[in-house]
Amino acid sequence: MGIRLKIPKNHVRAASLRKREELIDAEEKGILAKAGLIAHGRGEAFDYILGEATIPAALFATRAAAASLILARHPVLSVNGNTAALVAKETVDLAEAIPADLEVNLFYRDRRRELAVKSTLVKAGASKVLGVGRRASAHIPELFSERRKVDPNGIFSADVILVPLEDGDRTMALKKMGKFVVTIDLNPLSRTSQAADVTIVDNIIRAMPNLTKAVEELRGLSRQELKGILERFDNRRNLSETILFMRDRLTALAKEE
Amino acid sequence: MGIRLKIPKNHVRAASLRKREELIDAEEKGILAKAGLIAHGRGEAFDYILGEATIPAALFATRAAAASLILARHPVLSVNGNTAALVAKETVDLAEAIPADLEVNLFYRDRRRELAVKSTLVKAGASKVLGVGRRASAHIPELFSERRKVDPNGIFSADVILVPLEDGDRTMALKKMGKFVVTIDLNPLSRTSQAADVTIVDNIIRAMPNLTKAVEELRGLSRQELKGILERFDNRRNLSETILFMRDRLTALAKEE
Repeated sequence: MGIRLKIPKNHVRAASLRKREELIDAEEKGILAKAGLIAHGRGEAFDYILGEATIPAALFATRAAAASLILARHPVLSVNGNTAALVAKETVDLAEAIPADLEVNLFYRDRRRELAVKSTLVKAGASKVLGVGRRASAHIPELFSERRKVDPNGIFSADVILVPLEDGDRTMALKKMGKFVVTIDLNPLSRTSQAADVTIVDNIIRAMPNLTKAVEELRGLSRQELKGILERFDNRRNLSETILFMRDRLTALAKEE
Repeated sequence: MGIRLKIPKNHVRAASLRKREELIDAEEKGILAKAGLIAHGRGEAFDYILGEATIPAALFATRAAAASLILARHPVLSVNGNTAALVAKETVDLAEAIPADLEVNLFYRDRRRELAVKSTLVKAGASKVLGVGRRASAHIPELFSERRKVDPNGIFSADVILVPLEDGDRTMALKKMGKFVVTIDLNPLSRTSQAADVTIVDNIIRAMPNLTKAVEELRGLSRQELKGILERFDNRRNLSETILFMRDRLTALAKEE
């Protein structure tokens, strides 16, 4: 970027501005694709409308997500550039709490970025990272080029996958493969949000530690009780409630004018 | 970025995806700062909520903006990286229609980006471009570092300025200098949108040619009639209507679930 701004601590948007700088650093280190910067901006806008806070519908989805990950035979957490840039440590913590495998899963896959994301996870404490190099030898059907590559021992054979901040085409292809898909996405209208089984509409910075906490809280429940939590969760209805929450926030903000 | 995707023509988000590729190209050519990619993402999210279409409130603001630019003693169009990347030709067309000066005006100012934005404007047909190199020798009061630099013959002495996609601090500083500020911004809640005298909440790709059309339509009116258009325009009320429009769109989208 050339110039780095000193962000005054009392700036109204200081936290958000600092996060932007971190993302730009991650792009320069090869962790994040440039399209990941644009995606981050989309998230910022929806988070702003949410009030930059975790809403009840997000917590409700978080409990359902935790239940599905605990119940899973083979849960896998997918990690892309944005996830690694924002919550590497928190994702490793979640993988340990479940326990689940971690897989590097990139939309813009290239060798350099694969290794950068893997190294970010290892630095954050991960002991095993799937989906790198020749490991990514299985294909998601119906997708083309590098976007389809997954690890035969990871996402390909998983029953429950967490794919935060995921592309719509890929989420739909994973659904067609019969996966139970959990996502974290700030846009309740995105195709990923709509196609997933459980969508946590929240900033991943808040959602990932909340999910780990929920896993720790629910771990003691019986499989029957966990299934009950999942059965009571309706993703469509939860997304509608989220959109209505955003609508009410806009109404309140319009009145402040 | 390394990998370029072939975007299928029938992809549901094809237009938006192609625009992203153009932005990434502009960043690689030095026209756009990386933070400009994040800003583009924020715009995408609000445009999505708008329905990716020009709403009546935006057209109403466009007429007021055109009236103020025609009435101006010395109108200046500010051009940053995002504007140059998205609508260089359309901005040069507007400058000719008014007529107004064009000034390179960067948040992350450096010599390379100044020249890249200038060269984009010249290629798009501009004969004179202010705000480059030693020309940017005047300062906006209360701002620090490179962000405060403007051209003494351009923005500094202008009475009416169009600052599309502008930073909030800078817009407020320009207001304190007594400028009549027109902006184009997809976020009706941004500090720029709130501080400006006329805010066109629309995608700049649609707004810039609409503004040129409005200038051409209103040019024949008397100063009295133009002042009438401006007097009937209330930016606060128009922004509230925009937010209410977005609220209703979200309500409709929640019902589609």
